[in-house]
Amino acid sequence: MLRLPHLLTRQLPRFLETVGRIPPARTAISWVVINQLANSTSPRPRALSMLADYTSWESLTNRKFSGRHLAPGAVLTLPTEADVVQLYRRGGDTVPSADTSVMFMFFAQWFTDSFLRTSRTDFRQNTSNHEIDLCQIYGLSEDKTRMLRADSGGKVKSQLIDGEEYPTFLFQPRDPGTRPVFKPEFAGLHDESFIVDTILGGASETQQDLFFAVGLEHGNSTIGSTILNVVFLREHNRIACTLAAAHAGDQSWDNDRLFETTRNIMIVMLLNLVVEEYIRHIAPFDFPLRNVPFIADGARWNRSNWCTIEFNLLYRWHSLVPDSIGSGDDTLTAHDFRDNNQLVFSRGIESLITQCSQARAGKIGLLNTPAFLIDRSRPDWPSVEERTVALMREARLRSYNDYREHFGLRRFTTLSQLTADEDLQKRLDALYGDIDNVEWYVGIFAEDYPENAMMGDLMTTMVAYDAFTQALTNPLLARNVFNEATFSTTGMAIIKGTKSLQQIVARNSTRPDAAHASFSC
Amino acid sequence: MLRLPHLLTRQLPRFLETVGRIPPARTAISWVVINQLANSTSPRPRALSMLADYTSWESLTNRKFSGRHLAPGAVLTLPTEADVVQLYRRGGDTVPSADTSVMFMFFAQWFTDSFLRTSRTDFRQNTSNHEIDLCQIYGLSEDKTRMLRADSGGKVKSQLIDGEEYPTFLFQPRDPGTRPVFKPEFAGLHDESFIVDTILGGASETQQDLFFAVGLEHGNSTIGSTILNVVFLREHNRIACTLAAAHAGDQSWDNDRLFETTRNIMIVMLLNLVVEEYIRHIAPFDFPLRNVPFIADGARWNRSNWCTIEFNLLYRWHSLVPDSIGSGDDTLTAHDFRDNNQLVFSRGIESLITQCSQARAGKIGLLNTPAFLIDRSRPDWPSVEERTVALMREARLRSYNDYREHFGLRRFTTLSQLTADEDLQKRLDALYGDIDNVEWYVGIFAEDYPENAMMGDLMTTMVAYDAFTQALTNPLLARNVFNEATFSTTGMAIIKGTKSLQQIVARNSTRPDAAHASFSC
Repeated sequence: MLRLPHLLTRQLPRFLETVGRIPPARTAISWVVINQLANSTSPRPRALSMLADYTSWESLTNRKFSGRHLAPGAVLTLPTEADVVQLYRRGGDTVPSADTSVMFMFFAQWFTDSFLRTSRTDFRQNTSNHEIDLCQIYGLSEDKTRMLRADSGGKVKSQLIDGEEYPTFLFQPRDPGTRPVFKPEFAGLHDESFIVDTILGGASETQQDLFFAVGLEHGNSTIGSTILNVVFLREHNRIACTLAAAHAGDQSWDNDRLFETTRNIMIVMLLNLVVEEYIRHIAPFDFPLRNVPFIADGARWNRSNWCTIEFNLLYRWHSLVPDSIGSGDDTLTAHDFRDNNQLVFSRGIESLITQCSQARAGKIGLLNTPAFLIDRSRPDWPSVEERTVALMREARLRSYNDYREHFGLRRFTTLSQLTADEDLQKRLDALYGDIDNVEWYVGIFAEDYPENAMMGDLMTTMVAYDAFTQALTNPLLARNVFNEATFSTTGMAIIKGTKSLQQIVARNSTRPDAAHASFSC
Repeated sequence: MLRLPHLLTRQLPRFLETVGRIPPARTAISWVVINQLANSTSPRPRALSMLADYTSWESLTNRKFSGRHLAPGAVLTLPTEADVVQLYRRGGDTVPSADTSVMFMFFAQWFTDSFLRTSRTDFRQNTSNHEIDLCQIYGLSEDKTRMLRADSGGKVKSQLIDGEEYPTFLFQPRDPGTRPVFKPEFAGLHDESFIVDTILGGASETQQDLFFAVGLEHGNSTIGSTILNVVFLREHNRIACTLAAAHAGDQSWDNDRLFETTRNIMIVMLLNLVVEEYIRHIAPFDFPLRNVPFIADGARWNRSNWCTIEFNLLYRWHSLVPDSIGSGDDTLTAHDFRDNNQLVFSRGIESLITQCSQARAGKIGLLNTPAFLIDRSRPDWPSVEERTVALMREARLRSYNDYREHFGLRRFTTLSQLTADEDLQKRLDALYGDIDNVEWYVGIFAEDYPENAMMGDLMTTMVAYDAFTQALTNPLLARNVFNEATFSTTGMAIIKGTKSLQQIVARNSTRPDAAHASFSC
């Protein structure tokens, strides 16, 4: 069978980029590509979740447990987890991506933190709502949203610092040396001891005091998350003001309705950015994918989303993280860009966004994860990559080849089909002996891919399947919902007029000319 | 356009019944009829729930709030609620249905109690899981299911009385005159004070002590609910034994797996009965509808269920309730068949099932609700029909004609199109003045219908839409799930071999020949 995504990845010439500039052709190609990928495996519901190895009413209905694409397989003799982790270690300098910016990397982290939330107490569970709901700024439940909302105008709580708008601080003012304590208005927003003892464990007191009250626990963990929370918070409050002005004097547009309608608009703007700018960058040739209106309407894959354990794992693109961002005096090391709201204040979001948009991220693949994600910071704390490999093993995932077959790709018969890198072939041969034994999480990062792609065939297919069937089944995009009654005339115009992250950044900046946001560089 | 359901209701001759005996024709006609009705309005998600009059993320995702098909309309000048309630009052003897049994009535009540659960504290909310999940015997959540389950063999807790199996009793043994108290193992199964003070308020001490521990608060409220809970509990435990025997010696078939697999089988058997026996009876000509395998698979209406306020209201078929059941010494009055587990023990389920299957229910329509559902039992407690009319008003539902249009039926222009009964026309004219003002809940019960139907066009269309898009989107019927891995070989055979409620009753009875269960009489 002619597999269009494969053709797109490998053989269709760059004129697709040109064709993509013709609106009907762009729509038609987007429709075909999205449907092909969203049909690459059978639609939900899946027979199993991570709850148990057999199907139960609970496994079919309790979305606390991550979904899974494939049932566990027989336990094979596998290399040690420690040996597998070493397959990811970056040997020398960062291997750069072809054209992916650090801004893309930060966006990916901020974006996926909202729906790939492995429970800290049960690895089988995902504590998210499984939807793209902008919980990064709105929180994970209605009561948390209430804590983050302002009392009037449909706004989110914020503060002005040097004339610029930021989220409010999470902690009460305190005497130096005393333990940080949440402001009473944020009691219960997050697990306070987890934030104070774990997340803030290594941060200075100054950094702790600058910790913002936002929707998720990890919302202050990198300058990227902070910047995106700031930008989206400002955009929310800007739109709420616009709606309030458009409906001035209409009593039915109270604080609640202004907030909710603004949130509706914000989520759809994010969905458009995700498909048309973020996934576009992931797609081969940066084909200008369109978020085709109502594409899910008659689709077999239009089923409520349920994030899978495989989606959770395949999205761990640690190799995107470079050893440093930028050059010269402004160079940022991993130490600089983590837990550092102070830096956001001192440099300003415009300067940091521009620097991150002009700096190259690492290339996705094996042998390119930075040391700080491979090695333990404390002897008793497994590293990020160690936890990832352990999770794959605990989930008892099937092999790389089994997943290829499940997603409609032919099985490989030799390691050389997976990668042309002979040294890597030898290492994989020593660990696994046979292509059929290669673990899925290793295989998807070992896959070769051409310069115009961002990842290999199976990873592309799987990320596209889960991403499209999540984003495009969002209830706000449904035929009964996507209209002026839901967003208002003003809101529809804002949605239609917003094409890029750069626009959102610029219209919420006091120095719009200084900001340049891009996923490509 | 040729509307098949309309044709079926009104014009196609009875030879459809004959055609229905030819399997491929039966499947084809079922496929067309089900799809036509399930497409009679647009698919979910709906823009609004009962949460608010505008769309919000919460309204799109929080299923605690009932859905709604149509947005509220302008407030019209309407007759008083008291006057509307009187439209339902049965004037003289019960107007009998054409061929509907009291067993059907009890099944309808028992069945809908599991998913149409208006919250006692907020009329906008439905406290069910929105699915057909047999919560009547399994409870509403995993922790309640645990309370109702036995410790081994995958069974539900039960007791033997005179050699026959029943659920266990809910209350501890007590001294006469003291307040009933839940057994510790059932703490939290229901709201204890609601059960004791409200549900059991009027019951004798003997009846209170015979109250069974089952999934729902109202599970002991009529002999019909008790009988069906007993039958389905016995069937669960019978199947669990069968599965245990089939998998004896296989350690992976532990208590949990036996229970969960039995529950999977039970729910699908119920779904088959609902489509092929219960809805078949509702359908015109009792056409032998088939639960066509995977009919939802490629359907536009295949979206997670979300019970609507309209479904909740249209299902209040109070006029089915006759003044008495049966004749002679065994005649049962409304007093006899409510809160009376004692009667189930003394008469036995076989005798009661047979009596209820041979007794005629009332005809669905206005002017046929028995007095005990119209009049208050206490001055400060609104009656059942008063609460229903009040709920329709609180929900601010649109008119009967607006709903006709929304479900693809032509609007009526005169009251005479609604009903040929001239007295009723006059009463409606006095109350509403114009067909366009007739309230929906009044209109659906005022509709004329022929002898071979059970209700009018709009009620048929709306009940079919919500019923089919609920039952047939059950996750257990999905292509990835409906297979031997989910039900076991034994379970698949049980599902395929079960065609009627009568079969289930008979195979769980010590006197199978004495039981005759039927929805038609």
